[in-house]
Amino acid sequence: MKLTDLPTPCLVLDRPILRANLDMMAVAVGRLGVALRPHMKTAKSIDVARLALSRPQVQTQGITVSTLAEAEYFFGHGITDILYAVGITPQKLNRVAALNTSGAAIMAITDDLDMAEAIGAHPTGARTLIELDCGESRGGIDVDGDVLLDIAAALGNRLAGILTHAGHSYGGRTIEAMAAIAETERRIAARGAARLRAAGFACPIVSVGSSPTALHATSLEGVTETRPGVYMFGDLFQAQIGTVNADHLAVSVLASVIGRRKAEHRIVVDAGGIALSKDRSTEAAPDDWAFGRVLDIDGVARFGRAVVRRANQEHGVIDLDPALPFPPLRIGDRLRILPNHVCMTAAAHDRYFVVDGGRDVTDIWLRVNGW
Amino acid sequence: MKLTDLPTPCLVLDRPILRANLDMMAVAVGRLGVALRPHMKTAKSIDVARLALSRPQVQTQGITVSTLAEAEYFFGHGITDILYAVGITPQKLNRVAALNTSGAAIMAITDDLDMAEAIGAHPTGARTLIELDCGESRGGIDVDGDVLLDIAAALGNRLAGILTHAGHSYGGRTIEAMAAIAETERRIAARGAARLRAAGFACPIVSVGSSPTALHATSLEGVTETRPGVYMFGDLFQAQIGTVNADHLAVSVLASVIGRRKAEHRIVVDAGGIALSKDRSTEAAPDDWAFGRVLDIDGVARFGRAVVRRANQEHGVIDLDPALPFPPLRIGDRLRILPNHVCMTAAAHDRYFVVDGGRDVTDIWLRVNGW
Repeated sequence: MKLTDLPTPCLVLDRPILRANLDMMAVAVGRLGVALRPHMKTAKSIDVARLALSRPQVQTQGITVSTLAEAEYFFGHGITDILYAVGITPQKLNRVAALNTSGAAIMAITDDLDMAEAIGAHPTGARTLIELDCGESRGGIDVDGDVLLDIAAALGNRLAGILTHAGHSYGGRTIEAMAAIAETERRIAARGAARLRAAGFACPIVSVGSSPTALHATSLEGVTETRPGVYMFGDLFQAQIGTVNADHLAVSVLASVIGRRKAEHRIVVDAGGIALSKDRSTEAAPDDWAFGRVLDIDGVARFGRAVVRRANQEHGVIDLDPALPFPPLRIGDRLRILPNHVCMTAAAHDRYFVVDGGRDVTDIWLRVNGW
Repeated sequence: MKLTDLPTPCLVLDRPILRANLDMMAVAVGRLGVALRPHMKTAKSIDVARLALSRPQVQTQGITVSTLAEAEYFFGHGITDILYAVGITPQKLNRVAALNTSGAAIMAITDDLDMAEAIGAHPTGARTLIELDCGESRGGIDVDGDVLLDIAAALGNRLAGILTHAGHSYGGRTIEAMAAIAETERRIAARGAARLRAAGFACPIVSVGSSPTALHATSLEGVTETRPGVYMFGDLFQAQIGTVNADHLAVSVLASVIGRRKAEHRIVVDAGGIALSKDRSTEAAPDDWAFGRVLDIDGVARFGRAVVRRANQEHGVIDLDPALPFPPLRIGDRLRILPNHVCMTAAAHDRYFVVDGGRDVTDIWLRVNGW
């Protein structure tokens, strides 16, 4: 099967690029001397997880997931050590507990005292990390507040450690800025662990990480593991903040030309807002690619600065490069579109069509979507 | 089963509101004396289609779809008269032809002379409408150009009529503006049909429509059918351009509280960018609801102006109303979030949990996603 045979729109995953990205992060985290707990929220595929967990350059320690559907899927494929890194609720704790009773070792996170009491009182429950806020202002408590020790006490023997996430690293625009955010992330996590230990609590796990901070941290002293995810694939946004090489974007959307508008120097493709997502991450980046950058079927930038300007539900309207002549494309010809934010784009698709740099589809890897 | 039992995030569909919206459009289109060919791109559900097709106030004529996955699904559920209203490609024509050989009557659309020749030469193929541009500048040819007659000739006995879509009606902000766009849509379609007939071609179908123009048209003389879709559910954007009543939004995302940030007057829920979509339609509307408007579990606006300010992959960060005290919500409590653009939001979910105004789940209706 070749790319020209596939129904469009669909996802294409370039395996050599994926491997190169996995190696890049494995080297970076390996040098820092902490474990890599890859976050599977982007890839949601056991095949990708197996590659991410088998890099020789780094010690790995289980996986991270963003949904319980992922937890169930990866446990069903033999991975037991799983960190569910979104704040747990009472109902979800029951679902996690059922999996743990079946042999999984799923850990939860919380930043809430009432929830910690519910976890501590649960007959099976889950080992739990306390979430600290290191500047993202989304989840997590203040590392210096009294509630840290109250939550630890409420968790009792379910307490497994500390977690923080420097999601605000996506706002960094230089390597120095990323390194500074990574240092704050490390410092907050290590301080939380020190406070717990000083109060007599065990804190075996000290977990940090986003792709930018995992890559650009200069030290992870006091940390035990990091949880990057989007580095596996990369996207137009991550390339601009230095997480991946701009020519190392592993996933693109294969689309077919469905309209030619020569007078407007535009073409229309069958990848619209659902297939690409409506994410506009690059709006805040130096180079704004609207809803995606347009390459030819081989992933070559043959069309200059061609971008998906409009993304209606099933229509992508592409502004062609004004410096280039109208390309000799026919209805049904294939293009590849690089996404703004690959986590969001991939979420609309149920599988990857894997290529090894060419047009031959060498594997089909399924994803686990939903909740 | 009750809303409090459901895993979150998930879609809630309020059936009485859906019925009211279906009746509103049925009355509007019935008065115009044309057939309603409801567009199933929003609902993607046979259960919703059956309700939309059974309104006594209007004559219906098949359905419209936006993907071939929808076409296959609805044909599998017994609907044969289907218009696939996205420009066809050679590969998709083969897929449509296979369905038509099996008893479906799927029509295609094209605005391309080469493609029209391929359709005309195909051994089975599909009856095809010629797409005209009435101002949206996405698909369709100029109604007055020579190519209209060239495409008609190339299609030969596959020619079934004319189609146009005033998607730019979403840019209208008054009833008068909508009515004017609807009149342009009607005039262009009728003129295309007249040109075809004057040249000796049959043109049995003259198809127009978006929800705003179907609702606000004052005459559809010369038109045979209209294709609204989003009116069934409505959303925060459509409510502001007058397509649906603001208290008649049929679909919301049920979410659980996963974090409480009293110091920032915020809560965090488990409906993020995937569950809500990253669509920001209301950014261009008078009232910008960021990534969604937050109601209580019963769909009541108990929290004043509470909006989802940030939508990360699985986290929605809600800014609470500064004029109201911090609400007595606990971790795991349920909220309902109204979407910016329901077509995009629903696309992330595989089913609707149907309620009849209360908290009891009275039905589960599946959706057909993907391509």
